[in-house]
Amino acid sequence: MGILKVSARSRSAAVAGAIAGVVREHGRAEVQAIGAGAVNQATKAVAIARTYLALDGLDVSSSDLFVDIEVGDEERTAVKFIVEPR
Amino acid sequence: MGILKVSARSRSAAVAGAIAGVVREHGRAEVQAIGAGAVNQATKAVAIARTYLALDGLDVSSSDLFVDIEVGDEERTAVKFIVEPR
Repeated sequence: MGILKVSARSRSAAVAGAIAGVVREHGRAEVQAIGAGAVNQATKAVAIARTYLALDGLDVSSSDLFVDIEVGDEERTAVKFIVEPR
Repeated sequence: MGILKVSARSRSAAVAGAIAGVVREHGRAEVQAIGAGAVNQATKAVAIARTYLALDGLDVSSSDLFVDIEVGDEERTAVKFIVEPR
């Protein structure tokens, strides 16, 4: 289903819509962010997506974990948010 | 049980230890952050706390929401993380 990659310049509301759509379609969504600004936007997007999905009767929560990923030749640590119903 | 308030200068690992302690004691923890740097530290702390609590057999997730709070005379929007077992 792919991973939603969020940057510091991503719009939270737009990402939230994408998260809600993926959760409705696939039952869960994975969101990935690298860096403080991106993690902030991703967290806000998850909070907004919760309100969207609550309207559908879905109570979602997020399991946050660290993942090491390759960006070009560099290894970076990303925060991954797994958003799914409780 | 009180709310764990996180700032941009909070150490993630220290906050994670506090979250894990509160969840073990009370079954859930509430964490509050205002601003991008604080939200980033709080999110990382929740991710670390998940790994601590997993060692106790607890699989916790976080429900993130916005709350309006008074800081001095100003109204600010904070992100609140409610950390509890799935």
